[in-house]
Amino acid sequence: MKLALIGTGLIGGSAAAAWRKSGAVSHVIGFDIDADSGRAAERLGIVDVMAPSIGAAVADADLVLLAVPVGAMRAVFNDVAAHVAAHAIITDVGSTKVSVIEAAQSTLGSGGGGSSFSLRRFVPAHPIAGRELPGVQHADANLFHNRLLITTPTGDTNADATARVEALWQSAGARVMRMDAREHDRVFAAVSHLPHLLAFALVASIASDADGERKFGFAGAGFRDFTRIAASSAAMWRDVCVANRAALGDELRRYRAALDELQSAVDRGDAGTIEHNFELASRARRRFAPMLDAE
Amino acid sequence: MKLALIGTGLIGGSAAAAWRKSGAVSHVIGFDIDADSGRAAERLGIVDVMAPSIGAAVADADLVLLAVPVGAMRAVFNDVAAHVAAHAIITDVGSTKVSVIEAAQSTLGSGGGGSSFSLRRFVPAHPIAGRELPGVQHADANLFHNRLLITTPTGDTNADATARVEALWQSAGARVMRMDAREHDRVFAAVSHLPHLLAFALVASIASDADGERKFGFAGAGFRDFTRIAASSAAMWRDVCVANRAALGDELRRYRAALDELQSAVDRGDAGTIEHNFELASRARRRFAPMLDAE
Repeated sequence: MKLALIGTGLIGGSAAAAWRKSGAVSHVIGFDIDADSGRAAERLGIVDVMAPSIGAAVADADLVLLAVPVGAMRAVFNDVAAHVAAHAIITDVGSTKVSVIEAAQSTLGSGGGGSSFSLRRFVPAHPIAGRELPGVQHADANLFHNRLLITTPTGDTNADATARVEALWQSAGARVMRMDAREHDRVFAAVSHLPHLLAFALVASIASDADGERKFGFAGAGFRDFTRIAASSAAMWRDVCVANRAALGDELRRYRAALDELQSAVDRGDAGTIEHNFELASRARRRFAPMLDAE
Repeated sequence: MKLALIGTGLIGGSAAAAWRKSGAVSHVIGFDIDADSGRAAERLGIVDVMAPSIGAAVADADLVLLAVPVGAMRAVFNDVAAHVAAHAIITDVGSTKVSVIEAAQSTLGSGGGGSSFSLRRFVPAHPIAGRELPGVQHADANLFHNRLLITTPTGDTNADATARVEALWQSAGARVMRMDAREHDRVFAAVSHLPHLLAFALVASIASDADGERKFGFAGAGFRDFTRIAASSAAMWRDVCVANRAALGDELRRYRAALDELQSAVDRGDAGTIEHNFELASRARRRFAPMLDAE
């Protein structure tokens, strides 16, 4: 099977490497707007050749993987739709699903118009895996091993196309699960998008402090763990926050209300309220530890 | 040297084990209000024997280590002052320093009254080390190896006592640094106390959600790292937040103002403001990575 990899970053590069390793993919043609990233992917043997355009990359592909920031999906879908073969399956790795499905719906169309492609063969997906450091140089064929891979097929999605994409991810070692796209976005707003926003905000807040450098010098292991996700790609997470702004906005509002309460408890030295909050968290963290710490 | 260890938890137990390993300490007598913790410390060979009271533990000691939640320091100082030998050095491992120094000042006195002890021989200290899981069963003689140990001697503190405490920690492998107590509390409000509060608050917020259990089920590595510190001792961190409430309150206010801005940016889909914030953090996180990731 010939794969067109649009976006040769950490996740796209790791998927191509994993599928090549499993034998699911025999040839990879890449495209990236960042020529350096493309050259690195070629040098690492993750793609066989880089194409000069999205159209050239997808023209001969059986499978198209969109691994670009979610804010770029609409533009990429436009180029893909104009050049992709009628039998090809398109899938993505976007961290938000509703916005990507809407972008697909508005560009791929129903197979009419100038496009030979249809929504039926677009399978929205999200691998729950990552590294703190972005870039294809950190790609890893084993990145998805024992990780969750969520598909969010719509009413339009062809069942056979969904099954084929799920089989690909299973060949990479992932555990596959199907979900409703809106529910996916609500859940990940809470357990992924909000924590990223909070970590970025904390590091930015300290960095913009006059005393910031000195403060970083005293950071211990807890701070390092807490802020590791703030080393992720700023552009990727900016897009995620914008694309999932409704659900993320709700989660952030909820969280800010909890912080308002804690500010008031801290200011008046109310140990009971603080402990109630911390105990609830500590119990939950311990209770879900087997789930959270499973590697 | 005979050590009286008041509080046989993770940090106290690790310090006793480290000092015994380095030969600095030959005999450890312990006290803990939690009898289970005391029995575990005895069983693990971290203390030689548990005493029935603080007075009995410290009566014969050359060195007294207070390793209790900072909220308990005042009561412990009272008992220590009434029974400790005049030559003994007292030190602590509290995460806040101003409140512990104030507790010492209000109880240890100047050597007059009924106490044979004086402030001169109290050396406030804070090892920057920990584990996500509390309890003496996680104690480790190497926990402080290459970690920072901060002393915050006051105008009252005897220079020789400070030097002896610093030498003890160096024998445990720690890098020793002196700081002003107020500056210590400001810095750690930002890089330790606030991140703990934020992590506890996030886990508590999700746990109290009707959909919480389902959400935890989808948490990935980023969430795990971000919330690991929320598995810490709730009582210990409650005390830290109350003891350092002035500096922590200021940091939390600053952070909440940053979140207010981000909420507004998310709600209106303002990619520029979000990216500006995330880029600032991402650059700072990368810039300080060698510092933060040093083990």
